[in-house]
Amino acid sequence: MKALCYHGPRDIRYESFADASLQSDTDVLVKMEKCGICGSDLHIYHGEGFSPDMGFCVGHEAVGEVVEVGRSVKRFRSGDKVMLSAAVGCGACAQCLAGHIALCLNNAAGCYGLSHHLEGCQAEAIRVPQGDFNLARVPEGLSMDQALMLTDAMPTAYFGCRNADIAPGKNVAVVGLGPIGLMAVEAAFVLGAARVFAIDLVPERRAHAAALGAVALDPADAPAIIRDQTHGRGVESVVEAVGHDATISLALKLAAREGTVSVIGVNQTKKFDFPMGVAFAKGLTFRIGTCSVQNEWAELVPLIQSGRLHPEKYITHELPLSDGAEAYRLFDARTAGALKMILVP
Amino acid sequence: MKALCYHGPRDIRYESFADASLQSDTDVLVKMEKCGICGSDLHIYHGEGFSPDMGFCVGHEAVGEVVEVGRSVKRFRSGDKVMLSAAVGCGACAQCLAGHIALCLNNAAGCYGLSHHLEGCQAEAIRVPQGDFNLARVPEGLSMDQALMLTDAMPTAYFGCRNADIAPGKNVAVVGLGPIGLMAVEAAFVLGAARVFAIDLVPERRAHAAALGAVALDPADAPAIIRDQTHGRGVESVVEAVGHDATISLALKLAAREGTVSVIGVNQTKKFDFPMGVAFAKGLTFRIGTCSVQNEWAELVPLIQSGRLHPEKYITHELPLSDGAEAYRLFDARTAGALKMILVP
Amino acid sequence: MKALCYHGPRDIRYESFADASLQSDTDVLVKMEKCGICGSDLHIYHGEGFSPDMGFCVGHEAVGEVVEVGRSVKRFRSGDKVMLSAAVGCGACAQCLAGHIALCLNNAAGCYGLSHHLEGCQAEAIRVPQGDFNLARVPEGLSMDQALMLTDAMPTAYFGCRNADIAPGKNVAVVGLGPIGLMAVEAAFVLGAARVFAIDLVPERRAHAAALGAVALDPADAPAIIRDQTHGRGVESVVEAVGHDATISLALKLAAREGTVSVIGVNQTKKFDFPMGVAFAKGLTFRIGTCSVQNEWAELVPLIQSGRLHPEKYITHELPLSDGAEAYRLFDARTAGALKMILVP
Amino acid sequence: MKALCYHGPRDIRYESFADASLQSDTDVLVKMEKCGICGSDLHIYHGEGFSPDMGFCVGHEAVGEVVEVGRSVKRFRSGDKVMLSAAVGCGACAQCLAGHIALCLNNAAGCYGLSHHLEGCQAEAIRVPQGDFNLARVPEGLSMDQALMLTDAMPTAYFGCRNADIAPGKNVAVVGLGPIGLMAVEAAFVLGAARVFAIDLVPERRAHAAALGAVALDPADAPAIIRDQTHGRGVESVVEAVGHDATISLALKLAAREGTVSVIGVNQTKKFDFPMGVAFAKGLTFRIGTCSVQNEWAELVPLIQSGRLHPEKYITHELPLSDGAEAYRLFDARTAGALKMILVP
Repeated sequence: MKALCYHGPRDIRYESFADASLQSDTDVLVKMEKCGICGSDLHIYHGEGFSPDMGFCVGHEAVGEVVEVGRSVKRFRSGDKVMLSAAVGCGACAQCLAGHIALCLNNAAGCYGLSHHLEGCQAEAIRVPQGDFNLARVPEGLSMDQALMLTDAMPTAYFGCRNADIAPGKNVAVVGLGPIGLMAVEAAFVLGAARVFAIDLVPERRAHAAALGAVALDPADAPAIIRDQTHGRGVESVVEAVGHDATISLALKLAAREGTVSVIGVNQTKKFDFPMGVAFAKGLTFRIGTCSVQNEWAELVPLIQSGRLHPEKYITHELPLSDGAEAYRLFDARTAGALKMILVP
Repeated sequence: MKALCYHGPRDIRYESFADASLQSDTDVLVKMEKCGICGSDLHIYHGEGFSPDMGFCVGHEAVGEVVEVGRSVKRFRSGDKVMLSAAVGCGACAQCLAGHIALCLNNAAGCYGLSHHLEGCQAEAIRVPQGDFNLARVPEGLSMDQALMLTDAMPTAYFGCRNADIAPGKNVAVVGLGPIGLMAVEAAFVLGAARVFAIDLVPERRAHAAALGAVALDPADAPAIIRDQTHGRGVESVVEAVGHDATISLALKLAAREGTVSVIGVNQTKKFDFPMGVAFAKGLTFRIGTCSVQNEWAELVPLIQSGRLHPEKYITHELPLSDGAEAYRLFDARTAGALKMILVP
Repeated sequence: MKALCYHGPRDIRYESFADASLQSDTDVLVKMEKCGICGSDLHIYHGEGFSPDMGFCVGHEAVGEVVEVGRSVKRFRSGDKVMLSAAVGCGACAQCLAGHIALCLNNAAGCYGLSHHLEGCQAEAIRVPQGDFNLARVPEGLSMDQALMLTDAMPTAYFGCRNADIAPGKNVAVVGLGPIGLMAVEAAFVLGAARVFAIDLVPERRAHAAALGAVALDPADAPAIIRDQTHGRGVESVVEAVGHDATISLALKLAAREGTVSVIGVNQTKKFDFPMGVAFAKGLTFRIGTCSVQNEWAELVPLIQSGRLHPEKYITHELPLSDGAEAYRLFDARTAGALKMILVP
Repeated sequence: MKALCYHGPRDIRYESFADASLQSDTDVLVKMEKCGICGSDLHIYHGEGFSPDMGFCVGHEAVGEVVEVGRSVKRFRSGDKVMLSAAVGCGACAQCLAGHIALCLNNAAGCYGLSHHLEGCQAEAIRVPQGDFNLARVPEGLSMDQALMLTDAMPTAYFGCRNADIAPGKNVAVVGLGPIGLMAVEAAFVLGAARVFAIDLVPERRAHAAALGAVALDPADAPAIIRDQTHGRGVESVVEAVGHDATISLALKLAAREGTVSVIGVNQTKKFDFPMGVAFAKGLTFRIGTCSVQNEWAELVPLIQSGRLHPEKYITHELPLSDGAEAYRLFDARTAGALKMILVP
């Protein structure tokens, strides 16, 4: 089959790859119909912490059609339209069953294209382990595009908002307005935010946020304007959706006393200078982590079905899988209004 | 001064009444600029549980201007534009100070026009006890109409929604679409409801709810339609905003397993037939009570300031205080699209 | 095999019954080692709402050893020591998987001996449907007696306490001191209660509660003493563990303003006179229902392992299954200090 | 009057100081009967961040008797036995009134002996600003020693536990077993902890924790033993009660996935190396700050009254105020079993 493979920094290639196939009787084989490029894929693209000798195919967001199921699979059959979860659990332990895949008691939590035993899904076909648990039917009334956004990006945005303790009547800041940041802006309003300050360097991205009702700000102006508009207090909740040291520092700066800073951007810094004295004086809560995708679906699906969330709005490009390298390049450059990039076989 | 007084069932009169005046050095005297008629005032109007020999003036929603303050009052001075709270607390005990006026440790919680020591505020002037605690400045950016809605109706609607455990992605039903019910529909969306089923006999009121994005239903159709649209499950949260036995029974019927029914309509039934077996099988939570108005302001004020809630939309009539009797008649008849009735001196 | 069967009010017989056997490849067959008689079994015993023509065997609490497993069963094999859950779920829907068996989307939630398709477990062997989901290994370090108490009674007591919103520093009342009520007293302290008022007619039961640190009271004295000791306020949380109209009414009476009354006693009254006016004035929360046993294990198992809860203390009798009729008689009479009755084959 | 004053690192002197006196009509003057030395006083003692030219008297924990009240003071009169709150609020803004002194809207939150306008209370008399708000009567049934522990230490320990998200059935670690750490151990059990791992270098302190039911560990052994006893997972909640970089790093290391680390030790590090990658992989919550003392009293007072918490147990020394220098020396050396040091005039 054809797939996108990582060969080194900024070197993603469309090439032949070993066919995906069932390896266990609980596996499900899915023909990919649409897959996405995630902001965290750019870490791979930049060569941060990944080794070219892995030679794997990349990607962890996809929807498609079931083409083969293992003997023990009960919930799916060929022809079912399905969506993956970027968070892959053992599906057998109490934590996975309760939706806390990140707490998998078998330490089996993984992610397509990032864990050695799970090939990426920017490929013509995907093997899904523990299919009964790690797949879901495309929910009634949702488009394939909407379903694709549920495989990682929208749940991560929503998780980031919940982690930020966003509550009715509160002021919120979202730092970084890529697709996940913009979805966080939309989710913050669903969670009751009175005002959302949306911060990014790129004017087009700020314009998106403003259209959602946010106060869009350039990072250079944000501290002063937010201080002014909150009577010097800052915001109760900050969602950081970039992962750079500078943006995390900005997030910590914007938080009000007893506020919460939630980081969903990927940051692997070993020696981040955490401003302990400031955090102590403010009484901050700081949260960081990745979401158990399946765990967010129960709330997100009805919100999309009823039209309160529109994750598909942030899809700006749909290209053939064979143009994957170009798609990565565009997304990385943040040009041409590139937000969510979708690839089709 | 002139005021509206209760003389018996359906007999509210505009007449002369003893001038309001300071009785303690913590009192504040407020010149009424706008006052409202509350749905619960109709209980007085219907003679339910109130005695004509009280001879008091009625009403518990008002905004106005401070005209005189007691010697110990610190936060207000003449000329301040202020809003009352229908829930009057001692303002000295730990519970009142923390906003839980209904839990006043001095058992001093009261309501204008309903407690013997507190004259009603459908009058030219109002004595506010413990003014530092029981008054607030009209918040920055809010109109007097919006402030008036914060004295009781909007906080009660919001409290009713919180009591119903409304949470993101949930299905909600609101039974009764008077002003408070309609505000509950709007608040339910702010609290994250995916869908709101809004139920009332009056088509005009249903039309209001539909305009807010709710699924508007006649009570006769509601059980079947809600059952159908929730795959037989019912709704997780019900707000009952009428107070009749029949509507409370309907609310209990619409609730899903482990759902919550919140009653904010006034019901004084001594022998309500509670369906214990059904509640047991469903695992219901049932909440009923009145709100500590001040306690809701911290969340509501920024939501109104930022335009997420529009309580002033439900004001349909503004009449002179001298036409109070006619205002009560119109409101009671639910005709002419009467929702919130406002009286001005 | 031998089992206890219901033949009419106060007529439980030890007799031959069709052997339990696998009916599906997800079933597990368990040889009973110990089973319990639950307070709710007395409803069957009294003939309340059950028909003798069911002719079924009764009981829903048991531990034992796996003797046979269906072909699809993965987590268990012969020889495993296991405990049942009185709440039997489909084990396949999202709600069951998340532990909310009472919300089973397939409406398949049932209970041994109470649902037609599930024979009781006061029998030499028990068929457990969806064994992978509805069974658990006896947790490390727990005795079979402790495990038996985890099959229904202790989880129900704990669920009742959580439903009562028991929180650190609060005053609690427990009405009814059978085994579940006594475990609720112990659990209330684990949940942080400052004081627990424990109420029962039977002096021996009150003595048990007093030994746990509770203030033990006769129902006749309770209202006055609690009023006095709470400065007239009542208690923030009440757990009702009887299910009679009179005890539920007492529970509602004892609750403080904004308090919560949690009913775990079984009450099937169709016209319970709910004191709506009092509940409204107090601002009460009322909860009733049954627990999803599996859902409570994650918190309870470590609390028993570390010695903070001692459910086995409430086992007062262990008799042969063949003496089941006598065990029922003793338990029903509440004599001889009868609390938890255990039967062994 | 006589008071303890700071003259430089390890130089605390008992000397004459300007008499405390009323400065505003809301002040209350309190004759000190007992005062405490707090672990955070050692930061002053070590000269960390404090300047000798302040020349102020130190201490923020005291109980005593009211000797004079300002004209506007309503809740107190001469002769009242009272306890201070180390957190001093304006007592007028909505946040202070609701108990969130750290969020004081007037930015008036301060602490005796640490804020320029508030003299310390290791002195014969103390001026308490906004006495109606910043003082409380010694609660019914509590000794002066118990009340003294409520002025800062016990509330801080409890706040630290709540900040750590301690919940029923969870594993907890407490790093640092000074008086506050030991009280955190006791409070962790009240909040439902199944097990508490208590960590300190000093064997006597570990012995105290073991007597409370904790698993007492030396810091060197703690990681391996906790890993082993939690099946490799770590603990859900960690309370850090030292404030050193090393102990905060240890706390972060001991936390399980999705665990919470709560720091109550004072740390002013400007460049703490926060292990962002580890925190991201684990999905940690990190909280740090100081408590709004008054806010904790509602829960703590009944827990002490009913004998569930015994903060007075950690008082090991009572010396004359004139021996203050020696008391500081002993406490700093952690010798002679020194935990809470109390000084009397």
